[in-house]
Amino acid sequence: MAIKVITFDADDTLWVNEPFFREAEEKFASLLEDFLPAHQSIKELYRTEIENLHLYGYGIKGFMLSMIETAMNVTDQKMPISLVEKVIRIGREMLEKPVELLPGVEDVLKSLNGDYRIVLATKGDLLDQERKLKKSGLEDYFHHIEIMSEKRPSDYAKLIRHLDVEPEEFVMLGNSLKSDILPVLELGGHAIHIPFHITWVHEQVDHVIEHERFMEVENISLAAELIRKM
Amino acid sequence: MAIKVITFDADDTLWVNEPFFREAEEKFASLLEDFLPAHQSIKELYRTEIENLHLYGYGIKGFMLSMIETAMNVTDQKMPISLVEKVIRIGREMLEKPVELLPGVEDVLKSLNGDYRIVLATKGDLLDQERKLKKSGLEDYFHHIEIMSEKRPSDYAKLIRHLDVEPEEFVMLGNSLKSDILPVLELGGHAIHIPFHITWVHEQVDHVIEHERFMEVENISLAAELIRKM
Repeated sequence: MAIKVITFDADDTLWVNEPFFREAEEKFASLLEDFLPAHQSIKELYRTEIENLHLYGYGIKGFMLSMIETAMNVTDQKMPISLVEKVIRIGREMLEKPVELLPGVEDVLKSLNGDYRIVLATKGDLLDQERKLKKSGLEDYFHHIEIMSEKRPSDYAKLIRHLDVEPEEFVMLGNSLKSDILPVLELGGHAIHIPFHITWVHEQVDHVIEHERFMEVENISLAAELIRKM
Repeated sequence: MAIKVITFDADDTLWVNEPFFREAEEKFASLLEDFLPAHQSIKELYRTEIENLHLYGYGIKGFMLSMIETAMNVTDQKMPISLVEKVIRIGREMLEKPVELLPGVEDVLKSLNGDYRIVLATKGDLLDQERKLKKSGLEDYFHHIEIMSEKRPSDYAKLIRHLDVEPEEFVMLGNSLKSDILPVLELGGHAIHIPFHITWVHEQVDHVIEHERFMEVENISLAAELIRKM
């Protein structure tokens, strides 16, 4: 069966995202260095984020709340109140960052446009993802945009049903094995992994994937060439 | 043209929402009463929320961040750090609240089911709205669920196009004249207003609406009867 729908992940597949979180974590840890070594603050922050995930979901606002909670915990509420303001500023700067497209992205979307239905499937905060899409200038390439609170097999199943195609006609491209690749393979779809140099611990997968509908390529242009041959 | 799609707003149309925000505001203001009279804290909070709306959007996480910022502003950063923790607790309690369906909601959805396509269109935080929908037990009644960052005419136009109906075949039911009624009338759709006893200032409209495709009823059961006659 030929591919009808190409679905792209957004963060760290179309544009830079994770490095901004790493940068923010560094800034956050440096605010707390009178209380705790940086690597421990970052570890505590991660623990708080994971604990809060069921309540806050993915995205910058939840990250901001988790930073504030972490700061209170690690300083035993002894930090100055001005630190809260600095933490909020870190988050607000993230929300206002311009969008940095990854190399080749626009050319690839342009070249696939018309031959396939192109879809965006991204996890995270609704308003923030919409804003990034708008800033990216890529909006018009997408036939459908799906902003998801999670990327589980059931979430993809809903999307594929909604797009009215068979799983074998669907290919997902993304940088996260956990969110973009494994759930789609499980459903019978195709998946192409385009690794990004930084991956959030929570998204890491520590086994090797071998699957007849799975491929890994170095960049998005090579992914597009592969799809043409499918 | 007969009605094909009935779209329901969620907060304060299907279930209680705004009273929880009012309750939270009262709690927040009482935390600050050593610094400011309650009505002034609430006024400051509202100002901060509106200022942050473009950045945080609607929903509880943004509300939490706005409460923290307001507390810092009105106390000139002189509040104890424990107050931040209390503010976060107010927000977390909101996120964990059970869902209280409004009277008649389930009966109405049951009775319309099968005769019309039933859609949910709600504004707010993605994860939080999904969670409320799940807790409500109403999920299966909806043919389509749209969680929107805004409810402007262009957002409804996208939804109507997506549902592949004409505006005249579309009726929207909701408690907010600003978000549920006016934008739909502008597009040529039908709209039924079901007032709720509390409306957020930001959603208030201070003129009377007279329109041939507009109606106002006291409760959701009467709205369903009206639609049957359309």
